Amino acid sequence: MGGMNIIEPRVLKGFRDFLPAAEIERRALIETVEASFRSFGFAPIDTPALEYAEILLGKGGGETEKQIYRFSDHGGRDVALRFDLTVPFARFVAAHRAEIALPFKRYHIAKVWRGENTQRGRYREFTQCDFDIVGVNNAASDFEILLLMRAAFCAIGAGSVTIHLNHRGLFNRFLEKNGLLDKSVDILRIVDKLAKIGRSAVAEQLSAVAPNKEDDILRFIEAKGSFEEVLAQLEELSGGASPGSERLALLRKYMTENGVEETFVLDPSITRGLDYYTGVVYETFLQDMPDIGSVCSGGRYDNLAALYSKEEVSGVGSSIGLDRLIAALEALGKTKSRQSYAVVAVACLNESDAGAYQAIARRVREAGVACEVFLTTEKLPKQYMAAEKKGICRLIIPAAEHPLSHDLVIRDLVSRENSESLSLEAAAERLKVLLAE
Amino acid sequence: MGGMNIIEPRVLKGFRDFLPAAEIERRALIETVEASFRSFGFAPIDTPALEYAEILLGKGGGETEKQIYRFSDHGGRDVALRFDLTVPFARFVAAHRAEIALPFKRYHIAKVWRGENTQRGRYREFTQCDFDIVGVNNAASDFEILLLMRAAFCAIGAGSVTIHLNHRGLFNRFLEKNGLLDKSVDILRIVDKLAKIGRSAVAEQLSAVAPNKEDDILRFIEAKGSFEEVLAQLEELSGGASPGSERLALLRKYMTENGVEETFVLDPSITRGLDYYTGVVYETFLQDMPDIGSVCSGGRYDNLAALYSKEEVSGVGSSIGLDRLIAALEALGKTKSRQSYAVVAVACLNESDAGAYQAIARRVREAGVACEVFLTTEKLPKQYMAAEKKGICRLIIPAAEHPLSHDLVIRDLVSRENSESLSLEAAAERLKVLLAE
Repeated sequence: MGGMNIIEPRVLKGFRDFLPAAEIERRALIETVEASFRSFGFAPIDTPALEYAEILLGKGGGETEKQIYRFSDHGGRDVALRFDLTVPFARFVAAHRAEIALPFKRYHIAKVWRGENTQRGRYREFTQCDFDIVGVNNAASDFEILLLMRAAFCAIGAGSVTIHLNHRGLFNRFLEKNGLLDKSVDILRIVDKLAKIGRSAVAEQLSAVAPNKEDDILRFIEAKGSFEEVLAQLEELSGGASPGSERLALLRKYMTENGVEETFVLDPSITRGLDYYTGVVYETFLQDMPDIGSVCSGGRYDNLAALYSKEEVSGVGSSIGLDRLIAALEALGKTKSRQSYAVVAVACLNESDAGAYQAIARRVREAGVACEVFLTTEKLPKQYMAAEKKGICRLIIPAAEHPLSHDLVIRDLVSRENSESLSLEAAAERLKVLLAE
Repeated sequence: MGGMNIIEPRVLKGFRDFLPAAEIERRALIETVEASFRSFGFAPIDTPALEYAEILLGKGGGETEKQIYRFSDHGGRDVALRFDLTVPFARFVAAHRAEIALPFKRYHIAKVWRGENTQRGRYREFTQCDFDIVGVNNAASDFEILLLMRAAFCAIGAGSVTIHLNHRGLFNRFLEKNGLLDKSVDILRIVDKLAKIGRSAVAEQLSAVAPNKEDDILRFIEAKGSFEEVLAQLEELSGGASPGSERLALLRKYMTENGVEETFVLDPSITRGLDYYTGVVYETFLQDMPDIGSVCSGGRYDNLAALYSKEEVSGVGSSIGLDRLIAALEALGKTKSRQSYAVVAVACLNESDAGAYQAIARRVREAGVACEVFLTTEKLPKQYMAAEKKGICRLIIPAAEHPLSHDLVIRDLVSRENSESLSLEAAAERLKVLLAE
């Protein structure tokens, strides 16, 4: 191929290759949260990466329209890559309404694409992890999502989390009482920035939208105290008990019955910007690393599939920010950075004995131990290094001659000690015990 | 929303939604083959769905160019969706050559997109499942791929498979000896159709390309007998022993040493059309359903990353046809069609007791039993039906009053019998034992 031009093997800006260590890490995280979803009876679904642009853009919307990967396909159809998993889920529920029983609990972990400005450290291809209950609007379903968030984060092992909870109905009542309901979209957008830009900047922006009301709004969103104390303040500021405050009180009762009240904070500054949400809204913070922001957020919405169906379907859902979470786990030193799933390897002393080496590995795998076979004859110290580089701690050294009919040795690559001579049976059983430790 | 126009919730032709039963099935299959890959020490990687069109199209190539989803992105870059996992892997190896140790064993399970004619029952979005060893060219690595194919299919439980094996080097020597090497691309393409179009049609097409040589070619590709007998015939027809025949003899020795010789057939009609392959080539057939064609195919190739790097990297790999395999499993009645991972559910007698129901479920999950909680108060027979529809066989019926402080009952939805009253502890332990059976 000497005369050929070499094409530079680059990837698009904002897109990433995942090498084994990163991909093993990513998969371990996904498998952990999936196990939580499954144990709660949430079922997986999948939808196409590519859809009609009309379906994905629905209401239109400025930011989205600018970022979406949209083009004309071979048949001249106006198509686009999905930019989230919520819109495809809405379309899915409308399309398959007759096939799914409500309430429907689903999870969906898949890639999405946005042509965002990569200078902000954002990726153009990233994985979303959404879980929702649709077809029921009650405290039981709100609570189940909150409990599942807590269970998933316990399983992930990123340390304790605090879930900040609010109810959009209460805020809306408060705005209504103060004659500000028509400005709610702007106010929500400003209030949502409290943690980022600070109190005085929020007050200034609020005074432009709602003159002389900024102090009242801040008093509402900054209510402090125990769950019960904050709830009492919000009730008062919003004009007395309401379905929203009753929902929160019921959630608080459920939390106590499950001994999980420590995880939850009633935080009226949580509004989740979007006007999409209508009931509870929540964000999740790692206690060991609150500054990275929410790692799992969501809320209750009405009428999910309104664009595609006349049937009203209410739901409650949440989304885990996998990329942000992995960054946090790395910063907290809680990643393992394994290069391989194998924990043992069989050394290669003689390439022509490859059949015997595979037979040895097979017996070890039957003992439940993932085992790689080295495929080329190298000096043993080089094989030790190759194993260590992959995070493999033990090397099986077969007999140099007739490896299947002779004893072998297990080398511990950490202590650098060899075992006594062992039969294949004995070696497999020993590895099973050692690696179950 | 009464006045709004409803958008029809359709998907693009050739694209599919996966509802829970189908997605659970697909994932079970993927998780099974992944467990095999991991036990052999193969590591996962991932690459972007979207790449520079120049990278993906490389050599050009008519069919591919017509089918690829290609467009101009926001930055005016000429980009395309990947149409297979081989080209991105070649680019990956060239880009990360300094970061990966050879031999490199990887698997990659991901979606690919081709704007194919859907009338042939093909999908435009489908999942590929590739596994390769690159950076080594010896019988040990060829054998490992073959053994891994066998192990994966044993784990899948689709019944026994037969792997048909050949070596392209032998066929090329035969063509050379007969002065036909310059026509090898055409001859390969014709010979590859033997199973599909039959002997006489192949003979006719061959006579057009290689007049008077069709009988010799057919004698070569139709050689029959035991592995050793066929190997002896191919050696003779191709002019004596060669590296290709020696490689096959070594593979045969390894098969015998591992007691897996029954799985493999030396079949010179297997040529894998593409001129890409240079060594062993193979196809896999289900013994219970050979007519659906190969469910796992591949071979050895030289110089994987030639387009992107001057370093020569040889490899051997294979690809499982997941869609075809799932169709076969369905036809063989070997799919489970579960709607949920939950095996137990907690009935809802009173929505305001949702906290207690979640506490019950939590104890059951701690016993390792996936447990859904029903979220709305319905008559019990309706809840039995809802559970059965999801494939849930047992329903926990809590006490109607103070469910957490009173005993509960387990209903077997198959036998329609209720257990005696049980404490939560006793119920969780019983379910653990029952469901471990």
